[in-house]
Amino acid sequence: MEPSIDDVRAAAARIEPFVHRTPVCTSRSLDAWLGTRTFCKAEHLQRAGAFKFRGATNAVQLLSDDEAARGVATHSSGNHGAALALAARERGAEAFIIVPANASPPKRAAIEAYGAHVIECAPTLAAREAKLTEVVAETGAYVVHPYDDDRVIAGAGTATLELLDAIDRLDVIVTPVGGGGLASGTCVAAHGIDPRIRVIGAEPTGADDAARSLAAGHVVPQLAPDTVADGLRTSLSERTFGVLSNHLERIVTVPDTATVAAMRFVWERMKFVIEPSAAVAVAAAREAGLDGDRVGIILSGGNVDLDALPW
Amino acid sequence: MEPSIDDVRAAAARIEPFVHRTPVCTSRSLDAWLGTRTFCKAEHLQRAGAFKFRGATNAVQLLSDDEAARGVATHSSGNHGAALALAARERGAEAFIIVPANASPPKRAAIEAYGAHVIECAPTLAAREAKLTEVVAETGAYVVHPYDDDRVIAGAGTATLELLDAIDRLDVIVTPVGGGGLASGTCVAAHGIDPRIRVIGAEPTGADDAARSLAAGHVVPQLAPDTVADGLRTSLSERTFGVLSNHLERIVTVPDTATVAAMRFVWERMKFVIEPSAAVAVAAAREAGLDGDRVGIILSGGNVDLDALPW
Repeated sequence: MEPSIDDVRAAAARIEPFVHRTPVCTSRSLDAWLGTRTFCKAEHLQRAGAFKFRGATNAVQLLSDDEAARGVATHSSGNHGAALALAARERGAEAFIIVPANASPPKRAAIEAYGAHVIECAPTLAAREAKLTEVVAETGAYVVHPYDDDRVIAGAGTATLELLDAIDRLDVIVTPVGGGGLASGTCVAAHGIDPRIRVIGAEPTGADDAARSLAAGHVVPQLAPDTVADGLRTSLSERTFGVLSNHLERIVTVPDTATVAAMRFVWERMKFVIEPSAAVAVAAAREAGLDGDRVGIILSGGNVDLDALPW
Repeated sequence: MEPSIDDVRAAAARIEPFVHRTPVCTSRSLDAWLGTRTFCKAEHLQRAGAFKFRGATNAVQLLSDDEAARGVATHSSGNHGAALALAARERGAEAFIIVPANASPPKRAAIEAYGAHVIECAPTLAAREAKLTEVVAETGAYVVHPYDDDRVIAGAGTATLELLDAIDRLDVIVTPVGGGGLASGTCVAAHGIDPRIRVIGAEPTGADDAARSLAAGHVVPQLAPDTVADGLRTSLSERTFGVLSNHLERIVTVPDTATVAAMRFVWERMKFVIEPSAAVAVAAAREAGLDGDRVGIILSGGNVDLDALPW
């Protein structure tokens, strides 16, 4: 059973005191560049700088007091770690965030600034999972997965709920696909409101496991991702694969050159600092041949290392 | 006679069909960093990427049809040139923009994108003025000065009119000072609405001619500016010196290190691409000791060469 629109609506009510209702932004320049009428849901202006705060808050607020008292834990090199740290702080709970030694300094600093315990580990998935198991054994902390969790998916879907509340009618919504949490939430919210909306997933060609998974009919893991979009290097889970199989019109893959061009366009013309993962959706909207459509784009986040820009 | 609040109100009505009513943005992070309650007037989201479009539009719309038919001209390496080019296009007039050979490629590209005639010259003030005289002699175009013009000042003041329309009560407004057009418009608008508002000018220490001029009691030209804030390298005119003498509480000067830190803060935490000249106002607000005040900051523009960032 996938999460329902009712789950998304319940999440929206639950997280409302904590999240920003981010603006929906339009730009004549962007419309001209894409050949569409475009409505950007500005989740880079969300607290902690990404949509991730929605799902983390929904999960943390759903904990019992006993669970919250033991704290929450995850491993993350980026946005989910910061989001969970802030969501835990808002609940008055401790957060234990396992961070690989090669995480970018600003992302690590953000996690620390939100008061989380940062625990360093070697930069491999095995090391991250081993360290998380160890921390959970010691603390009893509750693990909040970045996307393989219905509460996190329902929370992510609230961005689309707000988008469709603000904008009358959309033909298409373009959403980035990493582990599939945001994309699943987008699907559930969009089709719960209007089943005619076409939802398009945006993926880097260098981490196109979702495209390959949908083509194969089963989860194909992403073994060696090679993309500037650091938020989209993960693999689908069975859960998110199921939702995306049911709902996505298609996946559009874009090379990093297109992503970087889209990122520069948004920075230069819209004056928004968006991260590469968000730019993948803009690049895919340009690639997808949506001329004349009314297109929603989820600008998923704005956390960038300004000392390591991709140009 | 300086421009009056009535001139600013008339300008606001005149330019309303052409300009964006930019948002007033708030940020808990910024408030914590500055120790104030802060309201940022987001002129980096203005058309052509800076407040300059307001004054240029006011001046161009005030031309007679005969004047407009001969076109408009200016010399500019940056925001004023792009603003005038777009303002002229909206009027259906030609624009002749003299651009020094060392102007940044994106700024030059923007001027061209708005359909202006770009005329290159050597990168000295003498060469710029000589070329402008030559172009005006050939074309009969009407010269719109970037700041030494009451219509441009009144147009610039409309940003503060909107700010004070959106926000109930401000103790202080901090505004960058280059040639003094924006600062003069800010003064006239603020004190026309509430004479108790303290207006603080923000200048780079490496181009502190306004601070030195106010201390000396007469215009002291900026001979060899040395600052990252490329919009603030110019000197006051007698006109802007007069307005600022009458209205400014004081000028706060900030070193480029503080400007770059403020720029990074706004990029990283507020996800806004602002240019160094705008960041000077943020840095000055931090420096000025405004703890507990309700502070308006004019984020003057967002035109940055992404290939030449100051870090």
